[in-house]
Amino acid sequence: MLTNKEKKQIRSLQIKKYRKQYGEYLIEGARLISSALEVEDTPLKQIYVTKAFLSNLSHQEFIEALRKKEMPFCVVSEADLLSITDTVQPSGIAGVCSFSHKNDIKPDDRNNWLYLFEIQDPGNLGTLLRTAVWFDVKHIALSPNSIDPFNAKVVRAGMGAHFHTSIFEPLELSVLKKTHTIFGGVSNGASISSIETIEEPWILAIGSEAHGLSPEIINRLDFSVSIPKIGGGESLNAAIAGSILLYELTGQNP
Amino acid sequence: MLTNKEKKQIRSLQIKKYRKQYGEYLIEGARLISSALEVEDTPLKQIYVTKAFLSNLSHQEFIEALRKKEMPFCVVSEADLLSITDTVQPSGIAGVCSFSHKNDIKPDDRNNWLYLFEIQDPGNLGTLLRTAVWFDVKHIALSPNSIDPFNAKVVRAGMGAHFHTSIFEPLELSVLKKTHTIFGGVSNGASISSIETIEEPWILAIGSEAHGLSPEIINRLDFSVSIPKIGGGESLNAAIAGSILLYELTGQNP
Repeated sequence: MLTNKEKKQIRSLQIKKYRKQYGEYLIEGARLISSALEVEDTPLKQIYVTKAFLSNLSHQEFIEALRKKEMPFCVVSEADLLSITDTVQPSGIAGVCSFSHKNDIKPDDRNNWLYLFEIQDPGNLGTLLRTAVWFDVKHIALSPNSIDPFNAKVVRAGMGAHFHTSIFEPLELSVLKKTHTIFGGVSNGASISSIETIEEPWILAIGSEAHGLSPEIINRLDFSVSIPKIGGGESLNAAIAGSILLYELTGQNP
Repeated sequence: MLTNKEKKQIRSLQIKKYRKQYGEYLIEGARLISSALEVEDTPLKQIYVTKAFLSNLSHQEFIEALRKKEMPFCVVSEADLLSITDTVQPSGIAGVCSFSHKNDIKPDDRNNWLYLFEIQDPGNLGTLLRTAVWFDVKHIALSPNSIDPFNAKVVRAGMGAHFHTSIFEPLELSVLKKTHTIFGGVSNGASISSIETIEEPWILAIGSEAHGLSPEIINRLDFSVSIPKIGGGESLNAAIAGSILLYELTGQNP
């Protein structure tokens, strides 16, 4: 069982300040926990699980995997689990993961990057992380004034992407060295499919839902790119635009 | 001012049953209202606006446009507006739109279609509508057991797409005639970029977030297509996958 002090500490991970202070965040549900366990050098530190979850026959394989990994788990009451999580649909299992904040970028960095400028919507950020991992872009930088990437809703939408990316935040685009070609999604750029040669390493910059990229960032771009509109509407959703640009940049259409 | 009966009726539009009964749904915020007003034969029937909104200098151009269109508007108190809407961020303006449910499809239909199977997440559905409009795919069908497309969150995420699409629901895929080439997004299909000739008219079928397409639908597909994974993760988000497939099918990459 959990003491009140423990509950309070875990619950505090719903607040950004305490996530930073403890270097930890909470994940919920068997699916995310499984994903975290599959990672070599797993970020999972501790699992909280209800009796009902443990005795559910459909979870036996999963529990066997937990035991094999020697992951410490603590059996808690339904009420305690609810009290420490932000959950919408109680799943009977949650875990605490550690993260390390990254701010050092090697001067000879050759990785492709996704640079996100003032993204505010947790679903958009989580989805962009998920797409980036799918296309093997594992270096993500967030500008100042972005939503916290370890916010519970972002983690939920990320569907495990957090375990496979290095998230640098907050980071100014200028910190990423000039060895990279910088693409930026804008409303009036060249069609992304018209760019003939994509030189790596690159950075793809995607702007906020409401205001796009800032003038300062647009000034730094090597290529201002767009997804041509053949129908109507003011814009594409930021996560959609970013994902289509990632799809193109990672050479799905040679 | 609004009577209690009026308030009750408008508020009831937050519930699917009453939206169907009245053939109406609610939209909120100046941006959506503007989009609705720009539509020829606008779906807007009535606008509710606060005094604060009307007296805000930055809204004068917008209000001028309202007057020109001779759109009836009713000045309501802040409290009344809050009581009739589902809003997260009060914007001072809301409107009632009418929709007509469409279920008749011409046997010689030559439109391209987006067919959505049991999509549950309002953000995903709204975003898919928004992307479809961007790529000029204006015929959308939803399977039984999909989220209601006139749900407030769907409308919000759609960013005006509802005014430019014909939404048919509920509709079984089999109702769409065999004159169409049917593409379906699956986890283990051919790479979408490997399909050399895309014959119109087509239907793109996208499956639910949790379970994808049903075996019955997969049986009907002419092409099972995927977005190749070059990194990690179990899947792409349904709205992302659908949007990238729409991008490809609408010939952005000839």
